[in-house]
Amino acid sequence: MRIRHEPPYRTLVGRAALGLGLLALLNVPAQAQDIATRYRDAANRILVRATGDSAAWRRLAELTERFGNRFSGSIGLERALDWMLEEMRKDGLDNVRGEPVMIPKWVRGEESAELIEPRSQSLPMLGLGGSISTPPGGVMAEVLVVSSFDDLKAKAAQARGKIVLFDVPFTDYGETVQYRSNGAVEAARVGAVASLIRSVTPYSHRTPHTGGMRYDSTVHKIAHAAITVEDAEMLHRMQDRGDRIVVKLVMSARALPDVPSRNVIAELRGTERPNEVVVMGGHSDSWDVGRGAMDDGGGVVAAWEAIRLLKELGLRPRRTIRVVGWVNEENGLRGGNAYRDRYREEAANHVLAIESDGGVFKPQGFGFSGSAEALAIVRQIGTLLAPFGAGTIDSGGGGADIGPMMELGVPGMGLNVEGTRYFWYHHSDADTVDKLDPHDLGLCVAAMAIMAYVVADLPVKLPR
Amino acid sequence: MRIRHEPPYRTLVGRAALGLGLLALLNVPAQAQDIATRYRDAANRILVRATGDSAAWRRLAELTERFGNRFSGSIGLERALDWMLEEMRKDGLDNVRGEPVMIPKWVRGEESAELIEPRSQSLPMLGLGGSISTPPGGVMAEVLVVSSFDDLKAKAAQARGKIVLFDVPFTDYGETVQYRSNGAVEAARVGAVASLIRSVTPYSHRTPHTGGMRYDSTVHKIAHAAITVEDAEMLHRMQDRGDRIVVKLVMSARALPDVPSRNVIAELRGTERPNEVVVMGGHSDSWDVGRGAMDDGGGVVAAWEAIRLLKELGLRPRRTIRVVGWVNEENGLRGGNAYRDRYREEAANHVLAIESDGGVFKPQGFGFSGSAEALAIVRQIGTLLAPFGAGTIDSGGGGADIGPMMELGVPGMGLNVEGTRYFWYHHSDADTVDKLDPHDLGLCVAAMAIMAYVVADLPVKLPR
Repeated sequence: MRIRHEPPYRTLVGRAALGLGLLALLNVPAQAQDIATRYRDAANRILVRATGDSAAWRRLAELTERFGNRFSGSIGLERALDWMLEEMRKDGLDNVRGEPVMIPKWVRGEESAELIEPRSQSLPMLGLGGSISTPPGGVMAEVLVVSSFDDLKAKAAQARGKIVLFDVPFTDYGETVQYRSNGAVEAARVGAVASLIRSVTPYSHRTPHTGGMRYDSTVHKIAHAAITVEDAEMLHRMQDRGDRIVVKLVMSARALPDVPSRNVIAELRGTERPNEVVVMGGHSDSWDVGRGAMDDGGGVVAAWEAIRLLKELGLRPRRTIRVVGWVNEENGLRGGNAYRDRYREEAANHVLAIESDGGVFKPQGFGFSGSAEALAIVRQIGTLLAPFGAGTIDSGGGGADIGPMMELGVPGMGLNVEGTRYFWYHHSDADTVDKLDPHDLGLCVAAMAIMAYVVADLPVKLPR
Repeated sequence: MRIRHEPPYRTLVGRAALGLGLLALLNVPAQAQDIATRYRDAANRILVRATGDSAAWRRLAELTERFGNRFSGSIGLERALDWMLEEMRKDGLDNVRGEPVMIPKWVRGEESAELIEPRSQSLPMLGLGGSISTPPGGVMAEVLVVSSFDDLKAKAAQARGKIVLFDVPFTDYGETVQYRSNGAVEAARVGAVASLIRSVTPYSHRTPHTGGMRYDSTVHKIAHAAITVEDAEMLHRMQDRGDRIVVKLVMSARALPDVPSRNVIAELRGTERPNEVVVMGGHSDSWDVGRGAMDDGGGVVAAWEAIRLLKELGLRPRRTIRVVGWVNEENGLRGGNAYRDRYREEAANHVLAIESDGGVFKPQGFGFSGSAEALAIVRQIGTLLAPFGAGTIDSGGGGADIGPMMELGVPGMGLNVEGTRYFWYHHSDADTVDKLDPHDLGLCVAAMAIMAYVVADLPVKLPR
């Protein structure tokens, strides 16, 4: 998921008022000003239906539990995609199809980390996605614990031949994830033989968190893995107590040739301008741990349920709403790029792209990237979401999978949700459906359905 | 640890007033009425010292991290006990000694649980302490999920030849732990070939929780293990969706002959009546997962630090305060029983027994089991703890390790702490020192030091 900053909910009223002011300033057509009036009934019907049962939650439970994790290259992913296509057809959605995408296949293999000195203990760990393996038999070396890249620089002379551990407390994702992304490069640069990070999470139950990482062509590659917050802090204290620390790291990860997969697509075709499209979704793949319930099964299911509800309610908009489960967001973004490549010529007809990839906790609103005139309009639509607390439309937002289309000029939007606990579970074995509340998920469905429906139905095309 | 019920803190003032009223009613010697006045200075000095640094927390970190878990029969436990004795001597405490105790040695061995149908998935698990192994190669069988013992009775006809899973949500420990303790017996009674429980915890991060269990001579033994809350709920939903569920359980647990260990003891000898003893402590052993920081390294360290501070402050009471790290509470209670056997003849000289075994979060007070007259006195002492929120003295309380002495008539007392998160970590890999706050642990030290010191120093012996 991407990073976002949410203003407090109490600013909603002020923001709505500002939106109205902007409308006047920008001389937006009068019809935009009565969006709230025009669509209030539809919005209420959507809300009542989306929160009237636990259908979305049950669908997410089935997706995540029938197929387990949906890692790129896994049989679980392909079975899940088959099932989604089958269910979408059963729902009677339009133009249900899988569009071919070649995706990477990285395989974790056997892996372990073991504390050897000052005492023997197995360290729960996860290799980071894309890491190379260790040499056969693993690498055993003394550990140097550092607190930051700056601290590593200060201790560079001690790093040669060692395993560097970045024990960096979580501040926010964007900042802390740098050690996951770039730790191997920076550690290799000073001569380390492998690198470890403290898992990128504000809360731990001795659960390691995986995620993507990168190499740099100017530096040799070393194996890179995450250990738990608890053990990173322990090793740091051992170092502070003067203990010599030795760890044995074994990883047999390897990258296999690309394999075929699919972006999964279903539509609610528009009545008047079916070639104009609001595209909306999340990513179908997950990491190879947990069950990918909030990252990002929930995003896909929320979008899918949104058009199913619209169809059942007879709310078919003027333009087409296209739901996409983009594949391979986690370790390649191949789905988002393939979509852009396929629809490049139709970018001008993409009215809006919406993504949910920050969990499906209680929705707070959306972040929007587009023109000031369009922002004023979606803020008007936001007033329809305000009754259930989801009306805050921030300036700036989007999603990884819609990023390639946004680069072509398509306005982009990301669902914002109450985010306290998202990173507790992110990329870990604990990302399972039980952490999510059926009512909150229903509210996410409602927020996405109302936003997509109104944008797709407005007499005026959302201005660029 | 034992189960306790804590009244809300706001009742403190009312309780203190009640205590004063009881004193009058019971015609307690006048000197008890000025406990608060007499000991306020000492209490303040103890509080300032106990919270002035992180010494207790650092000692707990060192105990738990240098030696890891301290499971009965492990080399880690014996090394930790050696270290405690050495450190206690360095602290200059009196009569530091290890008193021999023979303890059981149960070894978990290799173990695993794997979902075979409806799909393949490894299920994080922990065999329960004392369980037998499965037959070599494991047991593979269909799973029957039940919600309670009553539900098992209702489905008894379907249980034969199956693995029974008790998917019982956590209510309180005393209630929910019945499935861990007795699940294997009840499942075997209806013909199950193995039994699984949902881990006994109100919160899960896909982390299994172990703990003790029992067999019954009237029923054959079957292997008994805990899976995670997440997976128990998933299997339950799979059953509700009509899936056939097959699990393969492999356990190679075995009970080896008893091995020698020790109760670790250190004293602050009394100035006037050294043969009269306030005994105070926790248990030194832990389960074979995590690092036993709150269960119960924290209890032992709090008691130990309490007498170290008293000694440093020159607060040597009339009677002896004896700190004990009882061994093998978790799967045998051999330490508590051995102490009772060794000191049976001196039970009359045991003025009070205090245990901390519910975690060392923010202290709220103590639970006390003894005469009404004694309760009134310890409630007076409680007024010295009230300024830092630890003044609530409940009627009823104690601890597993002091239970045998309490059966001989010794008044017993257990430290009560803010308990929201204790069971999140209990008996799991997540029981590590980082979950504990140094200041809160300092307050626990202060509460135990003040309580023990005043009881040991009172002119009047705490009445039976």
